[in-house]
Amino acid sequence: MKRVMIKVAYDGTGYHGFQAQRGLATIQGELTRAVFLLTGEEVDIIGGSRTDAGVHSMGNIAVFDTDSRIEPANFSKALNTKLPGDIVVWCAKEVAGDFHPRRRASRKIYEYTVLNSEYDIPVYSRYSHHVRRKLDISAMEEAAKRFEGRHDFTSFCTLTNDTRDMDRVRTIFHAGTAMDEREESLLRFRVEGDGFLYNMVRIMAGTLIETGLGRFTPDDITRMIEGKDRRLAGHTAPAKGLCHMETIFLESE
Amino acid sequence: MKRVMIKVAYDGTGYHGFQAQRGLATIQGELTRAVFLLTGEEVDIIGGSRTDAGVHSMGNIAVFDTDSRIEPANFSKALNTKLPGDIVVWCAKEVAGDFHPRRRASRKIYEYTVLNSEYDIPVYSRYSHHVRRKLDISAMEEAAKRFEGRHDFTSFCTLTNDTRDMDRVRTIFHAGTAMDEREESLLRFRVEGDGFLYNMVRIMAGTLIETGLGRFTPDDITRMIEGKDRRLAGHTAPAKGLCHMETIFLESE
Repeated sequence: MKRVMIKVAYDGTGYHGFQAQRGLATIQGELTRAVFLLTGEEVDIIGGSRTDAGVHSMGNIAVFDTDSRIEPANFSKALNTKLPGDIVVWCAKEVAGDFHPRRRASRKIYEYTVLNSEYDIPVYSRYSHHVRRKLDISAMEEAAKRFEGRHDFTSFCTLTNDTRDMDRVRTIFHAGTAMDEREESLLRFRVEGDGFLYNMVRIMAGTLIETGLGRFTPDDITRMIEGKDRRLAGHTAPAKGLCHMETIFLESE
Repeated sequence: MKRVMIKVAYDGTGYHGFQAQRGLATIQGELTRAVFLLTGEEVDIIGGSRTDAGVHSMGNIAVFDTDSRIEPANFSKALNTKLPGDIVVWCAKEVAGDFHPRRRASRKIYEYTVLNSEYDIPVYSRYSHHVRRKLDISAMEEAAKRFEGRHDFTSFCTLTNDTRDMDRVRTIFHAGTAMDEREESLLRFRVEGDGFLYNMVRIMAGTLIETGLGRFTPDDITRMIEGKDRRLAGHTAPAKGLCHMETIFLESE
């Protein structure tokens, strides 16, 4: 029995998120099916970031255990022959049998893309959230910096039965905004942290957008964090603007 | 009767090109339908660039004549309420009654995007052509420069019954390649000219890609142009990597 780790990129538009749900197309479901087609095994895929419906990824992590004789490194090419075109495995390797991608210390990087223009641009709209009114970018940048540090992010989290009793303290190493060099109406909010709560980046992004529209000030962000109450923060920005960029493990895999 | 000019951006993935074809989804067909829903008129839409199936645009030009009382400038907002989300009208205005977007002197800018990486990246694959083998970018840049100037582009044109007897001399003001600032595996070929023949940018792009793969040299491009024979040039690169960026009219509209 070997544990294989894969790095998988996908366009989340057509999927009901990472996690398998009966009767719905999901990333985990497609990966499970592809492994079955290759090896005949019904494996349990453990995902690194359980991205929501419509959220994209440039390299999510997943592991599964297999008895197959396929060389671990060959799983990327092999799985790609069985996966739909909007899910691509970038690399595969063997990891320790107890390696669990969500329990290992890691840094995750997410980006949220906003298209700030009078009209939507169809070639961007699949991967960005369109905001018509002119955003105050410097207010957004200043507000984003308030997320940095070690905080209880209860105000930036949708509580579910699974997460109600969870520790909600996370460290944000970096949070900032950047305009695209080529297309000035594309604004990206990039955030790097040791973990993210349910909907956390989308609530951060929605709150920053409302800051850019003048509804909140950077100081409000600090008050929201201190208040530990979801009702203090802004709306949850739409899934399609969110992309998981990278997961970096701090110890060797 | 007024002639209204609109600037329209679209994701061409789901369309059989700009030009109306019976029973098939086209940009012209959707625009005609939207004008009919607004005004009750069955107008003839004249397109500026008759982009192929799968080709995108950031701002194609179209004109139509209308007796409606809608203010010309209001057609953008009004049409957007009737169009599918992957077609967006950016602006509208009245132009002279004899204004014809393909007969007026103009400069057109196209971009062809190549994703040069071992595996495809799903969030880019809708708008780029994936090339796995490492491309020699400096050879491509040097080759692109050979397109500049006033030449007979017979070698870079698919001949059809409509275009067989057409003059095939065009002026290319600028042709060059650029890497994306953010995503180094995205390479863009940008070309600006006074007009383009059928499939011309896609054949240029395909030939440049083959140059990047070492099959052609920059000098071969010059020989291809001089030879005036389609069989001398490279393959026609896939439609999805091509985007019409802009049309600039040289006299006032």
